[in-house]
Amino acid sequence: MAKQKKQPRPKAQTPKGFRDYRGAEVTRRDEMLASIKRIYHLYGFDALETSAVETVEALGKFLPDVDRPNEGVFAWEEDEGWLALRYDLTAPLARVAAQYRQELPQPYRRFQVGPVWRNEKPGPGRFRQFYQCDADTVGSASMAADAEICAMLCDVLEAVGIARGDYVVRINNRKVLNGVMDVAGIGGPEHEAERGIVLRAIDKLDRLGEDGVRALLGEGRRDESGDFTKGAGLSASSSDAVLSFVGARCETNASTLDRLGDLVADSATGCAGVAELREIADLVDAQGYGADRIVIDPSVVRGLGYYTGPVYEAELTFEVTDEKGQPRQFGSVAGGGRYDDLVKRFTGQEVPATGVSVGVDRLLAALAARNADVAEADGPVIVTVMDRSAMDEYQKIASDLRRAGIRAEVYLGNPKNFGNQLKYADKRRAPLAIIQGEDERARGVVQIKDLVLGARLAEEVSHEEWRAQPAQVECPRDRLVEEIEARLR
Amino acid sequence: MAKQKKQPRPKAQTPKGFRDYRGAEVTRRDEMLASIKRIYHLYGFDALETSAVETVEALGKFLPDVDRPNEGVFAWEEDEGWLALRYDLTAPLARVAAQYRQELPQPYRRFQVGPVWRNEKPGPGRFRQFYQCDADTVGSASMAADAEICAMLCDVLEAVGIARGDYVVRINNRKVLNGVMDVAGIGGPEHEAERGIVLRAIDKLDRLGEDGVRALLGEGRRDESGDFTKGAGLSASSSDAVLSFVGARCETNASTLDRLGDLVADSATGCAGVAELREIADLVDAQGYGADRIVIDPSVVRGLGYYTGPVYEAELTFEVTDEKGQPRQFGSVAGGGRYDDLVKRFTGQEVPATGVSVGVDRLLAALAARNADVAEADGPVIVTVMDRSAMDEYQKIASDLRRAGIRAEVYLGNPKNFGNQLKYADKRRAPLAIIQGEDERARGVVQIKDLVLGARLAEEVSHEEWRAQPAQVECPRDRLVEEIEARLR
Repeated sequence: MAKQKKQPRPKAQTPKGFRDYRGAEVTRRDEMLASIKRIYHLYGFDALETSAVETVEALGKFLPDVDRPNEGVFAWEEDEGWLALRYDLTAPLARVAAQYRQELPQPYRRFQVGPVWRNEKPGPGRFRQFYQCDADTVGSASMAADAEICAMLCDVLEAVGIARGDYVVRINNRKVLNGVMDVAGIGGPEHEAERGIVLRAIDKLDRLGEDGVRALLGEGRRDESGDFTKGAGLSASSSDAVLSFVGARCETNASTLDRLGDLVADSATGCAGVAELREIADLVDAQGYGADRIVIDPSVVRGLGYYTGPVYEAELTFEVTDEKGQPRQFGSVAGGGRYDDLVKRFTGQEVPATGVSVGVDRLLAALAARNADVAEADGPVIVTVMDRSAMDEYQKIASDLRRAGIRAEVYLGNPKNFGNQLKYADKRRAPLAIIQGEDERARGVVQIKDLVLGARLAEEVSHEEWRAQPAQVECPRDRLVEEIEARLR
Repeated sequence: MAKQKKQPRPKAQTPKGFRDYRGAEVTRRDEMLASIKRIYHLYGFDALETSAVETVEALGKFLPDVDRPNEGVFAWEEDEGWLALRYDLTAPLARVAAQYRQELPQPYRRFQVGPVWRNEKPGPGRFRQFYQCDADTVGSASMAADAEICAMLCDVLEAVGIARGDYVVRINNRKVLNGVMDVAGIGGPEHEAERGIVLRAIDKLDRLGEDGVRALLGEGRRDESGDFTKGAGLSASSSDAVLSFVGARCETNASTLDRLGDLVADSATGCAGVAELREIADLVDAQGYGADRIVIDPSVVRGLGYYTGPVYEAELTFEVTDEKGQPRQFGSVAGGGRYDDLVKRFTGQEVPATGVSVGVDRLLAALAARNADVAEADGPVIVTVMDRSAMDEYQKIASDLRRAGIRAEVYLGNPKNFGNQLKYADKRRAPLAIIQGEDERARGVVQIKDLVLGARLAEEVSHEEWRAQPAQVECPRDRLVEEIEARLR
């Protein structure tokens, strides 16, 4: 290893676009991931953990035609070639499905949870490392695989605390969309650019409304700033066809499917897509997932280009209040679909696959926004140190509490200033502090200070009354554990 | 993003020194980490999750005095400077303790669990990404902090399934060792090199025995291959002093402490070290951790140079049988100690700290070696597909089982060849398969095939008898869930 030179002190800083997570931020995400993994596992998916580092070659997509292949990814060169941090969990799945194809069960159903890295410009709430939480079935062409993932998505959301009625899983099918493109006269390979514009236009329906989308489907659209976005150049009737498709959602899944069938009646691809949707709707229905949870919704397109069949998306439907006090909806928290080129890059064989990715950070934000008013005293019980020579007794108290499953610790800083100990307890959001001086020890008692009640009293009453410490009680040492248990209940 | 060029197919391979973890490998580690985190949390430690990427500057140790600072770490240059993957969890803790020192509670007690990366030559069982699982108290000089971590280490080992009596936590103190060095005449700053040789020699006691260590303490040692390792050049009496120290462990902690006190009576540092050990022994004893679990053992040195006080190590004491059928001990699975330079690099202020790192992969290997004969049928119940048109009914069966908490899935591959479905169930290590053909459906029953019993029968009985399928029973469809529950119990 290189020897360290004498030089100025290093800056104690996370790299740009990265952040640290502390305390409840970590444990809440941990709990959420555990709930999701439990459901994935229950559905028969097997855990996979690939390393963070892959060869640039295996990751693909970002292959070097520039000197340094780091656009979008963090990459570096080693003696054996270029390595990179994974940018999603799908590319490593593709590599695994190809690498172990002789020994893996077919179909291969795996879930994977972990951070991914993007070398992109960070922004507010946009970080260069974030979690993904995926489940995919590789090697099954059956619509049952897609139906199952939609049902599972409902179970996942309910498992992490989103009540039924507060979310909806919306399904569409790229084949139906392609059928509509056929009908609108932009089905051929020479119209790829136009189809891209149409996809992006539909994706903006929420923001631009029908008129805005219609402009983008036609000649183009000039926004408030005066900027002009070129449109797909569709005729008025073709635009109508696309817009009827997007707005084809009816009261029931059955009538939506009938209407879609009419719209793409002239396209074989479109009809195949409608049949697939019908199969999915029947399968989820048989398992008890009705239209209150899973709906056919033609306005779902999913931005990415690589989907080849069903696409699905989970949306939270409740409103939260944002930082500016405005009500807003959270929108999509999970999505996925069917794609067929996964393993082909490696083996040349087409392997049908379908999978979902849950946006854990968005889900956490949604739950946090809804429970913003709940402040928790989630810290440990703090055993304060009045008498340094009684450290063994204080440790014994903490140890007794832990044995009863109560989170506890002895104050380990310099005990000279008692005020610092209480400040520490506050910073740790401790629910209770335990105090035992020489006098209390002689009498075989301890003082229990209720810090939550104390804080409330401190706000409501005068300093003098507060000093009377109404939130503090005395308790015999040998009844301490029971007393603390009762107070934390 | 760079456009992908037409080129030969990429290799589906993990980079050299990296590996994938699948199925039970992942879930067993997950469970172990969850148990350890639960204990850390119970002891009042707060979760921390830093990003995998740090600035090379903040990581330190590997600072660039060469063009490319990648010795030992994976590092690369971005516009804003050199970044690197963390090589342990202590360096990021140092950065965090300095970066947030105004807002963090003091002392700061944190745990962190996650992968770290080393750019080293991989070898058998040595990978370039592996897990660490640390707990540290930063900002406390109290021996209570060290005592607590030793007690916690016992709880951690018991929580992950190591029985009391199958492990021991051994404690030593670098100050005592330094006292011995004083007594041996190599205490001054000019003897740093000799002290390094002495440390490394003691660390090899297990392997080389007392004679080998004595040779390394003196002129040097020639091994079987004829290679010569230069020794520390101690006189015979100085070597004696070091070896008496190393072998000073007695029947009880109290007598070990007395003997150590005698050995370093002439060194103030040594005496301070013995007093610290005495304090730790008293504290853990008061909490009920006796010498059956925590022992003072002067032969513990811990290789790393940066420890300044107590050092501790957890060792598994049971024997396992290795791949060659030889009994062997697992040895150390966790270790740590006190170090004071942690935050100083950033702030200039010395901050006392102590902490432990648990070797999760070694612990998993130990438990796996001991339970090697237990083969688990940990896969899902597989609902086979006899009749493609009844997919909704098969999905309903899986769904009913999941609702009862039973891991289950429908076979989603091509159902044409029924043998492939059973092969799939075997690969998944499924305990049971469910079979329902048209006939069974008409009669309202299902077949339940016990794959574990079936495999055993297949080994023990002839093919003909096996074909009689004694491991298969029929069950009414509406009693399926109860029947499966009973069979999995």
